[in-house]
Amino acid sequence: MLETLTDVQALSLDVLQFLTQPKPEVLRGFPGSGRRFLAMDGRFVLVATARDPGIYEYAGAMRQATNNHASVTVHTGSSNVTPAQYMQAVAALAPDVWVALSDDVPSDCRPDRAAKAVDRSAAWLSECMSVAAAAPELSGAAVFAAVQGGQYLRERQRCAETMAAQPGVAGFVLAGLGTGESPSQRRQIVEQVVQRLPAAAPRLLCSVGTPEEMLEAVAQGIDMFDMGYLAGVTAGGYALSFPLDPGAQQQQQQQQPMPASSGSASTDKAPAADGSSDADAAADGGQDCSKINLWAVAYRTDKRPLLPGCNCFACANHTRAYLHHLLQAHEMTAQVLLEVHNTHHYLQFFKAIRASIAAGTFAAYHEGFLQRRQRLLMGAGW
Amino acid sequence: MLETLTDVQALSLDVLQFLTQPKPEVLRGFPGSGRRFLAMDGRFVLVATARDPGIYEYAGAMRQATNNHASVTVHTGSSNVTPAQYMQAVAALAPDVWVALSDDVPSDCRPDRAAKAVDRSAAWLSECMSVAAAAPELSGAAVFAAVQGGQYLRERQRCAETMAAQPGVAGFVLAGLGTGESPSQRRQIVEQVVQRLPAAAPRLLCSVGTPEEMLEAVAQGIDMFDMGYLAGVTAGGYALSFPLDPGAQQQQQQQQPMPASSGSASTDKAPAADGSSDADAAADGGQDCSKINLWAVAYRTDKRPLLPGCNCFACANHTRAYLHHLLQAHEMTAQVLLEVHNTHHYLQFFKAIRASIAAGTFAAYHEGFLQRRQRLLMGAGW
Ligand SMILES: [Zn+2]
Ligand SMILES: [Zn+2]
Repeated sequence: MLETLTDVQALSLDVLQFLTQPKPEVLRGFPGSGRRFLAMDGRFVLVATARDPGIYEYAGAMRQATNNHASVTVHTGSSNVTPAQYMQAVAALAPDVWVALSDDVPSDCRPDRAAKAVDRSAAWLSECMSVAAAAPELSGAAVFAAVQGGQYLRERQRCAETMAAQPGVAGFVLAGLGTGESPSQRRQIVEQVVQRLPAAAPRLLCSVGTPEEMLEAVAQGIDMFDMGYLAGVTAGGYALSFPLDPGAQQQQQQQQPMPASSGSASTDKAPAADGSSDADAAADGGQDCSKINLWAVAYRTDKRPLLPGCNCFACANHTRAYLHHLLQAHEMTAQVLLEVHNTHHYLQFFKAIRASIAAGTFAAYHEGFLQRRQRLLMGAGW
Repeated sequence: MLETLTDVQALSLDVLQFLTQPKPEVLRGFPGSGRRFLAMDGRFVLVATARDPGIYEYAGAMRQATNNHASVTVHTGSSNVTPAQYMQAVAALAPDVWVALSDDVPSDCRPDRAAKAVDRSAAWLSECMSVAAAAPELSGAAVFAAVQGGQYLRERQRCAETMAAQPGVAGFVLAGLGTGESPSQRRQIVEQVVQRLPAAAPRLLCSVGTPEEMLEAVAQGIDMFDMGYLAGVTAGGYALSFPLDPGAQQQQQQQQPMPASSGSASTDKAPAADGSSDADAAADGGQDCSKINLWAVAYRTDKRPLLPGCNCFACANHTRAYLHHLLQAHEMTAQVLLEVHNTHHYLQFFKAIRASIAAGTFAAYHEGFLQRRQRLLMGAGW
């Protein structure tokens, strides 16, 4: 259904949700395996990952893992899984890309635990790849290795080097981030890991989501992201509204100096008919110049679409006031419409980033984005 | 969104949900009022009704009503509403059809309470119509009067006669049913009420929903229904599967006498590849020859669509096994897909009924439907 409402082309799928309910045998029973079961045959690039950032619990998982199995959080609770069991589910899903099982530890684990995670993850990668080599469903699939190591640069470096040395690995996942490390720690980890990976191999960064974080990661050489941030934003009742084209907006603002009351996180040019503005909404807690919270009373009578100018299904058909009402009434249509808009907005964002890379202007795009954000925050009195 | 996935043409809307959140003023702020707010402008026939059968609580409401106000259940709790307040919300919604506020009592209320409900409902109808006459938003809208009276034939008759005598009423709602009366009591009430109403005026029957109940009601002269049954079926994880064309299926069965194991509540002609059948599912509690319950383990590996032959969005893209999985994982997509199928199936059912009425063959359609249902139940060993 997503496909009919946005232009999604790739989907990431949590392998762990297919260990027990449904069992891999159920998926295998379908011609085309999991792809057909999930109605994704031929339409999406399917990336099978080993962790749903939305439901993962680090603390218990870390304690219960052994050299033989990981402990993982699935929708029925926590569960142990061996590399062989994990690969059964991967094979049943028949993805285009799969991530090897790794010993997933958070940034603030102890250094010896981080070292153990690196050793186990390397061993499990080999084991997963042996199983894959014998699975016909995975003959055309690419494997990504997960780089662990917590906040410890030495362990991260060691893990990156070990994983990069493994023949047959097509890409890499920078895992275990977004778990308590500081922004500068993360920046260092990403830098140290990326420089140890083959230049041409794609890199996926976990648990990073704000537009500023993504732009910084792209600048550091990251190619792919998971969508945990989007899910969280949608669950909170937010619609993303950060401007995709800082250049155009910049020009507009040079023409008309910006008083606090005309501040706009959206690309809306005309003030709202009822005199309300995004800056008013900011004062009411309704927005932060990057997203708006539809729970805020500021939107109770707002006749504008979630993001004026957006051409997603939600914005083409509905108003902020209606979304506010749906949230108040606990109608699940609220989440559906917000997810449609937020997914669409991030896809447009990625499109803009790719275009700027292709045109050789990414650095300027990045800089313009940060500058505009700062101006908006100042204009709105933050 | 519903419109893009099925061919819905009319929607009924619970006025009571628009008394406080959002307030009528919010709706009025939109050009085109509530229709624009709800993104229904020009696309649906909008019927504003006074009771959401899904959340209505009779007991408390009945005790708290007075001659001046009804007590109603809304999504924020229970609330008192006067006819004037009710009409403010109706006017803000700007529907095509609106139902007058009535004193809604259940079948098993005491006779004196039922009599009081009839008196109040008649008085409130007049009051509602006076307000409507002064409201420009309602100049083109039709008013339906609600017939109350509990299980008491004398009160039902008196109410029908009073309401039918009120000039300007376009149609009638047989209200307060599905609240404990027996099938034969309901049959008598419908018969007695309908024969007292103007022959050409449309009649809406509340809280009746199974295909057999609907066919009987149509035979008695009912034209419209609310969709509380569909909502309940969907919430329970059911997909409707009763056959729409008893004639065609009848013929098929004459050709091949029906052993228990080939019983099929669907129009599926080929047995499933894994050898399972609907009769097996019946034995597992998965179906009752009218609907299937996707929670049942019988569907864990079932590769068929919800209803083979159905051309709704859900059936065109997904399998029973996938729906079973979505329910297990508590994914709201399960409810969305089931609602799409169930709405589509009932719309097809109504289409078949209308076609048989137009062809003068409704009685045969009705009879064939009941006969086939009985054969199916016997065949499945019920
Ligand atoms: Zn949008
Ligand atoms: Zn269907």
